[in-house]
Amino acid sequence: MLDRIIRVDMKNLNIAEEKIGHDYKQLAGRVLSSRLIYDEVLPYADPLGPHNKLIVTCGLLAGTTISCANRLSIGAKSPLTGGIKESNAGGIAAFKMGRLGVRAIILEGIREDNTWYILVVQKDKVFLQEASHLKDKGITEKAQVIYQEYGPRAGLILIGPAGEKRLLTAGIAINDADGVPGRFCGRGGLGAVMGAKHLLGIVLDDTGCRLEEPVVQELYKEKVKELHQNILTHPQTAEIFPKYGTAAMMEITNALGGLPTRNFFTGRFEAADKLNGAALYNTIRSRGGEGKTTHACMPGCIVRCSNIFADEKGSKIVSPLEYETICLLGSNLEIDDLDTVAQLNYLCNDYGVDTIEIGCAIGVAMEAGIIPFGDKGAVLNLMQEVVKDTYLGRIIASGSVIAGKVLGIRRVPAVKGQGMAAYEPRAIKGTAVTYITSAMGADHTAGNVARANIKHHLKDGQVVASRNAQIGVTILDALGFCMMVGPALKGRSILVELINARYGWDLTTEDLEKIARDNLSLERAFNEKAGFTKVHDRLPEHFYEEENPATGTVFDITEEDLAEMVF
Amino acid sequence: MLDRIIRVDMKNLNIAEEKIGHDYKQLAGRVLSSRLIYDEVLPYADPLGPHNKLIVTCGLLAGTTISCANRLSIGAKSPLTGGIKESNAGGIAAFKMGRLGVRAIILEGIREDNTWYILVVQKDKVFLQEASHLKDKGITEKAQVIYQEYGPRAGLILIGPAGEKRLLTAGIAINDADGVPGRFCGRGGLGAVMGAKHLLGIVLDDTGCRLEEPVVQELYKEKVKELHQNILTHPQTAEIFPKYGTAAMMEITNALGGLPTRNFFTGRFEAADKLNGAALYNTIRSRGGEGKTTHACMPGCIVRCSNIFADEKGSKIVSPLEYETICLLGSNLEIDDLDTVAQLNYLCNDYGVDTIEIGCAIGVAMEAGIIPFGDKGAVLNLMQEVVKDTYLGRIIASGSVIAGKVLGIRRVPAVKGQGMAAYEPRAIKGTAVTYITSAMGADHTAGNVARANIKHHLKDGQVVASRNAQIGVTILDALGFCMMVGPALKGRSILVELINARYGWDLTTEDLEKIARDNLSLERAFNEKAGFTKVHDRLPEHFYEEENPATGTVFDITEEDLAEMVF
Repeated sequence: MLDRIIRVDMKNLNIAEEKIGHDYKQLAGRVLSSRLIYDEVLPYADPLGPHNKLIVTCGLLAGTTISCANRLSIGAKSPLTGGIKESNAGGIAAFKMGRLGVRAIILEGIREDNTWYILVVQKDKVFLQEASHLKDKGITEKAQVIYQEYGPRAGLILIGPAGEKRLLTAGIAINDADGVPGRFCGRGGLGAVMGAKHLLGIVLDDTGCRLEEPVVQELYKEKVKELHQNILTHPQTAEIFPKYGTAAMMEITNALGGLPTRNFFTGRFEAADKLNGAALYNTIRSRGGEGKTTHACMPGCIVRCSNIFADEKGSKIVSPLEYETICLLGSNLEIDDLDTVAQLNYLCNDYGVDTIEIGCAIGVAMEAGIIPFGDKGAVLNLMQEVVKDTYLGRIIASGSVIAGKVLGIRRVPAVKGQGMAAYEPRAIKGTAVTYITSAMGADHTAGNVARANIKHHLKDGQVVASRNAQIGVTILDALGFCMMVGPALKGRSILVELINARYGWDLTTEDLEKIARDNLSLERAFNEKAGFTKVHDRLPEHFYEEENPATGTVFDITEEDLAEMVF
Repeated sequence: MLDRIIRVDMKNLNIAEEKIGHDYKQLAGRVLSSRLIYDEVLPYADPLGPHNKLIVTCGLLAGTTISCANRLSIGAKSPLTGGIKESNAGGIAAFKMGRLGVRAIILEGIREDNTWYILVVQKDKVFLQEASHLKDKGITEKAQVIYQEYGPRAGLILIGPAGEKRLLTAGIAINDADGVPGRFCGRGGLGAVMGAKHLLGIVLDDTGCRLEEPVVQELYKEKVKELHQNILTHPQTAEIFPKYGTAAMMEITNALGGLPTRNFFTGRFEAADKLNGAALYNTIRSRGGEGKTTHACMPGCIVRCSNIFADEKGSKIVSPLEYETICLLGSNLEIDDLDTVAQLNYLCNDYGVDTIEIGCAIGVAMEAGIIPFGDKGAVLNLMQEVVKDTYLGRIIASGSVIAGKVLGIRRVPAVKGQGMAAYEPRAIKGTAVTYITSAMGADHTAGNVARANIKHHLKDGQVVASRNAQIGVTILDALGFCMMVGPALKGRSILVELINARYGWDLTTEDLEKIARDNLSLERAFNEKAGFTKVHDRLPEHFYEEENPATGTVFDITEEDLAEMVF
């Protein structure tokens, strides 16, 4: 079950298929992509050169209609960080992969000619199709053209012009059930890796596929029911997320002084109430039209924390509008207007760049005085420079660290080359510990501590909290689970029971934790072989020395404190 | 003697003076700057932040009229490489420092306000003078303004607009005896470190100074005479260099297939005879006017390998025009015209950027198709974009590695973030071993093997040859000697005898070698603490896999081979 591995050599346009190897049998999602990278990619390979591989993989529950369990993982050596990377997203691609029985697609080699391709995966046929006519088109248009040939229900994995140009902020888009390619494996420049391979997209056509029945059917049904019951009764997944979406986080972070504002200068935004969950909900609701306050990003999701954001006339601008984007393209730029953020978000999505990294880079450009903080028109113009591929646009599209170097700015909110997510590190120290210790760079999805019951301004307990969060999210990543559902699970046993029931295994929660811990160690080992040392496990200098004005704190977790970070 | 250490705190505008400490008594030039960086700079300090220090130091023979012995060393943690860096140059500054008795100037802290300064060092007075009016001026104009106040004989150490903007290609200029600020501590972005400190220049005014007599006068005189005799009788320093200058190297490298051409694609340039030593000599000679085929860059130099290059009307374009520049801004860009190279060189000098790094970055931009290889007008226009500080200009002025990332090019000729000098690494493998193993990044001045009696295309003996070259040049760097004079020394004993006679020491050549070897180990140890590993001791991937068409060779020296590189 879910045992097909498709290997695509983009240099010679060869495709080979194999069954998943014995050693990898229980690995999927991030733990499979990281293991394949560790085993198959030279640690010192140029991320955009012939020796890097792009791994597309789904979780162990992919293809089912279990709520929140169909996230797609994409991994590679990152051109942004130089280290191992995995980024996952919702949408329908992992569901389609699951139905096709494909655990992973391994993309190898690069092309340096003028031909570009899409990979089509069908029940009985996997092939590369020349698609040079799709080059230079936005992701929205690419999707439309592909739907005409493969039908509106195909699962899509697409890059935009940014990926084609191998820009370091390039992400990879996944379509949702409405056909909107708005879910992003955004982080780490993985779209550039796909672009270096001249692969514009993957089409997952599950026509004629039937999902294999779970091995232990009764138990499986019972556990799915129990999980859904848990989700529908936990306040976060039953009430807060369906109503406010991930934007609900803003009230929490702003109250903590942990909402990145003005290039991470401070952690409190005076106009947060124009951007937060309530503002988002009320705006969408009052405008009506195509807007929706609640929306499922994956098949079967009963949380439906996604949304569709419409303009004043009720016409859709973008779907979804999420917390990280609202912060990085909002408060971080002193933009207090959801419409501006939504327009920026759509431009990012269509061009195919990560909203977090672009938001960090624009913040740096604002600090450099290129445009003023808070200037809505100027920021939309700057985003047009990105989309039009001007030289200034290229600087922004190369990410925050490069923007800082080119523009002469040293206060760049990044770790290991990657811009920070929407948690200010001097205020929410546990997430900052994840930023500095994760092999993934400054990535909240590697272990967010913002909701932990801990005093976020103090240093006590942050390393342990980050460690636990990193292990916990890795387990979810292996199964294809959305991290938003974590609190509703009521422990990990239900996860083990679900996969045991599906596959007929007899894993324990300890086994699952060991898989996660081994994976975290392996990711760090890859990075070590790629040239990372403990020197790279640091925040930029100013976070240790300049107070967050909202909290009066600096980041004070030392190298000695980090000794506890053992997996 | 030569025992003053001046410490300048640019944050608080404080100046303190001390005598050189006992442990540093026999250290000068690169070995002093590296030791001070090792001892005083946090390895993980942001190079452009408050914890980096810029060390300006002269060699042990500074202030004398010994030929070739007045080079100035400047060191810091490099913003370009992230590692320890020293870059040295001729001109008159080290001579003035020697006469002032100043072994080192240590510049600490940064300023983030709008005030800019020059540091003035006089016999009895050292002070900071506000000089914000000099900001944004080219180096030529800055020098002219300072000469008006401090006289035409002042020694000058200056940054241009590039350093003020903290651009990673920014170098530091030194004036020559004609008042031309055309000698460059070019490599590693040290000008940006000075710019971050808001120090525009250092004025060395030795009015009233008398050089202390050497301790053992007779021996000293005898040894100086012997050295000069050696120089005047060795064919390289007596005939080739005075006539052709460093450009004499081009015939050698081109014959070896080691002359970087078209972004280091190949190692042989079909039009090398329009750029080489003979072409340079004949052009200058035939034009007459202000041009000079031979010219001393340092007081007392009897080699006079420098030159003044004039245009067809006999008006000076630039001084000097040297091999590295002629290659990186010539053959590397497929430019076969000395006038174009000279104009580019002048623009680089006045703006204050490293011609090597700019040449590498423009080569990358040409590979990206921004302008065509070989287009003289286009390359001059592109250089104008640098000087006018357009966004494209900023991308170029951020160096080859960043240009490659922003422009989506993976064939970037750089190691540890720094562009390669004018020795193609698959053809001249010993110098390439220096590129990859030196703490300085891809820098020929860290140990050039191009003149060694070795089969340059083979891997045999290259590691040992590079090791010996690295030790040899470090000794010269400690004394302030020009590396061009190495072959004429006839062994190292004369160097030891000269410093023993000057200082009354009793060092042996073994002692001197130990100082050099210890320094090389210490530089690597700093880099290790700064986060470098053996993974960083590699060339870019394509040099291992794609042949240099001129030689049919790839770079094939392995990590195992490098085990011999122990100091």
